[in-house]
Amino acid sequence: MVGGGQLARMTHQAAISLGQSLRVLSESPDDSAALVAADVRIGTHTDLAALREFAKGCEALTFDHEHVPTAHIEALEAEGVKVFPGSKALVFAQDKGLMRERLTSAPTPRWRRVTDVSDISDFAAETGWPVIAKATRGGYDGKGVWVLDDAAAAAELVATGTPLIVEEKVRLKRELAALVARSPFGQVAAYPVVETVQKDGICVEVLAPAPGLPEDLAVRAQQLAIDLANELGVVGLLAVELFETDEGIFVNELAMRPHNSGHWTIEGARTSQFEQHLRAVLDYPMGETSLTAPAVVMANVLGGEPGGISIDERLHHLFAEDPGARVHLYGKQVRPGRKIGHVTVLGDDMTKVRARAARAARWLQEGK
Amino acid sequence: MVGGGQLARMTHQAAISLGQSLRVLSESPDDSAALVAADVRIGTHTDLAALREFAKGCEALTFDHEHVPTAHIEALEAEGVKVFPGSKALVFAQDKGLMRERLTSAPTPRWRRVTDVSDISDFAAETGWPVIAKATRGGYDGKGVWVLDDAAAAAELVATGTPLIVEEKVRLKRELAALVARSPFGQVAAYPVVETVQKDGICVEVLAPAPGLPEDLAVRAQQLAIDLANELGVVGLLAVELFETDEGIFVNELAMRPHNSGHWTIEGARTSQFEQHLRAVLDYPMGETSLTAPAVVMANVLGGEPGGISIDERLHHLFAEDPGARVHLYGKQVRPGRKIGHVTVLGDDMTKVRARAARAARWLQEGK
Repeated sequence: MVGGGQLARMTHQAAISLGQSLRVLSESPDDSAALVAADVRIGTHTDLAALREFAKGCEALTFDHEHVPTAHIEALEAEGVKVFPGSKALVFAQDKGLMRERLTSAPTPRWRRVTDVSDISDFAAETGWPVIAKATRGGYDGKGVWVLDDAAAAAELVATGTPLIVEEKVRLKRELAALVARSPFGQVAAYPVVETVQKDGICVEVLAPAPGLPEDLAVRAQQLAIDLANELGVVGLLAVELFETDEGIFVNELAMRPHNSGHWTIEGARTSQFEQHLRAVLDYPMGETSLTAPAVVMANVLGGEPGGISIDERLHHLFAEDPGARVHLYGKQVRPGRKIGHVTVLGDDMTKVRARAARAARWLQEGK
Repeated sequence: MVGGGQLARMTHQAAISLGQSLRVLSESPDDSAALVAADVRIGTHTDLAALREFAKGCEALTFDHEHVPTAHIEALEAEGVKVFPGSKALVFAQDKGLMRERLTSAPTPRWRRVTDVSDISDFAAETGWPVIAKATRGGYDGKGVWVLDDAAAAAELVATGTPLIVEEKVRLKRELAALVARSPFGQVAAYPVVETVQKDGICVEVLAPAPGLPEDLAVRAQQLAIDLANELGVVGLLAVELFETDEGIFVNELAMRPHNSGHWTIEGARTSQFEQHLRAVLDYPMGETSLTAPAVVMANVLGGEPGGISIDERLHHLFAEDPGARVHLYGKQVRPGRKIGHVTVLGDDMTKVRARAARAARWLQEGK
C-alpha cells in the first residue's frame, strides 16, 4: 500500500487476519502505519523510482490516498505491475473535473470548469452566490474547497493559479455515503448507506445505517455506487459521498480506497472495509456486509489544543466511563484538528449510541 | 510480549487499535508474530540476557506462552521490570503440581505427585485404571499428557525421568472454559463460559456461550475463575479449563495469557481477549465482555496432509461459499496437526453456526 497513514495502519490489521503482512511505502518511519507494520519502505509517492522499487515482489499495489501522479501509475502498469484500482479508474477519484465530465448518467450538482474568473461569475449568475470552488486535485478534509460569496473572492482564488471547478451550493438536508467493493472478477458488495456529519469540511461522525433513510432512496444510493464501480472498472473500495436534498441524491465526491465513512465497519459490519479492500485487491470473493448491531456510530477524534491530560490518561477515563466503546488510535502526534483516532459505539438505539460515541470522542479530544 | 506465536500476532493486532505497537521477542524472524510486528527482537525465552535486553524500554512484559523459566522472571522483577502476570502468579500456570497444591478451595480431580512408579500404582488402586499422567511443566496441545492403562505403561513413563503428577480420569460430560481478566488495580471482567471440544488433546472447537449450561453452573464457573484470579494475584488474562461432570465442575488447567478458548472473542465479544489482556497489563479499566451474537463458534484450522490445493486457493473457495465466515491465518508453515489458523462464525442458531464453522475449518484444512 502506497502511503503510511491510518488507512494503511488499519489495512495492515486486516491483512494480518488473512495471513498476510502489508508492505507499506511511507514518507517517514513515524507515519501511522510505519509504526506498526513489519515491512516498511521509506519513500515518496511522487518518486517513480521509489514506487518501482517498492512494487517489486508485491502481489498487487494499492493506495492509502489519491496523491500518486497518474502518469506514475500508468508507467507501473505498463511495466506489468498489478495496480488496483487501476489508473483508468483511479483518475476519476483523483481529478474532480474528469470525474464530473465522466458522470453523465449519475446525478451531480451543476458545475463548470474554471479557466478564468468569469467562469465563476457567469456560473454564479445562473445559480446565485455563494458557489463552491474546488481544487480539481489534491484536496482532502476540507482542504481544497472554498465557499465563494462574491466575484471578489472568486478573483482572489483564481489568482492563486490552482486548477479549479465551480459547483452550485446544493441545499442539502444531510450528507450520505454509499460504500461498495468490487473485485477484478466483477463481484460487487455494497454496505448499508450511512449518514456522514461534517464540521468545517471534516467528517466528525458517521451513523450506520443512515437514520430514517427511506428504503427506496437507500437502494438507489447503493445501486448508484454499484453502477459507478462497474462503469469505472473500480477494483477495491469505492466510497461515493452523496448529498441528500429534497430533489433526491447527488454525487459529491468519489474515493477509491478505505474511507473515513467506512471506519464503522471494523466492528459494525461482518466484514470490515479494510478486509474487503484487501479481498478485492487480492481477487478473493467479497465478504458479507451486513450490520452487526441495529445502530452503529463512528466519531472521529481530532487533536485538541495543546495541554491538559495525556492521551493515555484520557483513554483511562474513557475506558472507565464506557467499557463498551471501541477505540482506534493512530499513533499520530496530536495537532489541533488532525484526525488522531476514532471511536465506534454499537447498540440498539441510535440516539443513545450517538450520544455515547460523541461523549467518547470528546473525552479523547478534550480530556473531559 | 515474550514469544512470537499466534497469540502475540493477534495481540499485536489489538495493540494497534490502542495506539500501541507490540514489541515481540521471537525465536525466529519467521515466527507468526514476527512476520507482522514492527518491533521484533530475535532471542530465546530461556536466555536471561536476551530477556533483560528485550525488557529495556518496555512499559510492561507479558507472555505468549508459559515456558519462560520462573527464576528468569524473578530476576527481571528483582531488577524492577514490570512483569504481568508476575512470577508469583504465573508459576501456578507453569507448574501443574504447584497449581494443584495451591488450589485447596477449588474443586480439582483427585491427584498425586509422582516420585516413583508406586505412586501411580497406589493412586490407581484407589481410583482404578486408567489414570492420567501429566508432565508438571511444558505441556501444551496434548503434549505432556498420557493416559496410562496399567502399571507397565506407568513404569515406562516414569523411566523417562519427566517430573509428573498423576490424576484420576474424570467421567466428564464435556469441557468448559471460564476466561477472566484482572487489572493491577484489581478490577476483574469475566467472559461468558464456553464449551471447548478437544480431539486428540487439541482444542478443535469452542462454542460461546456453552450450549445448555444452567445459569447457576455458569455463574459458579465465572465466580471460580474470578476468585482464582484474585487469590493468585493474576494480572492479565486467566483461562480456567474445566471439566463438567455429574458431580459438578472441576478445574483441569490454568493459563495466564490469551488462550485458544478465547479466540472467539475477537468478533464474538465486545472486547477481544487480546485487547483485554493488554488493557489489564497496561493498567487500563477492563472492557465489556458481552456477546455480540447469540451463538458464536470458533473452529481451529489444523495443518492437513501435504499436497492438494494451496491455502490461498482454499481461502478462495471458503470465501465464495461462506461470505460471513471470519478467517484468521497465522502465517505459519503447514505441518500436519499444527494450528495454522482459526475460523469464527456468528449467528442466531448454535446448530447452524457450528455446522458453518466446521465446514469452514474443513475447507481450509482439507481443501474440500
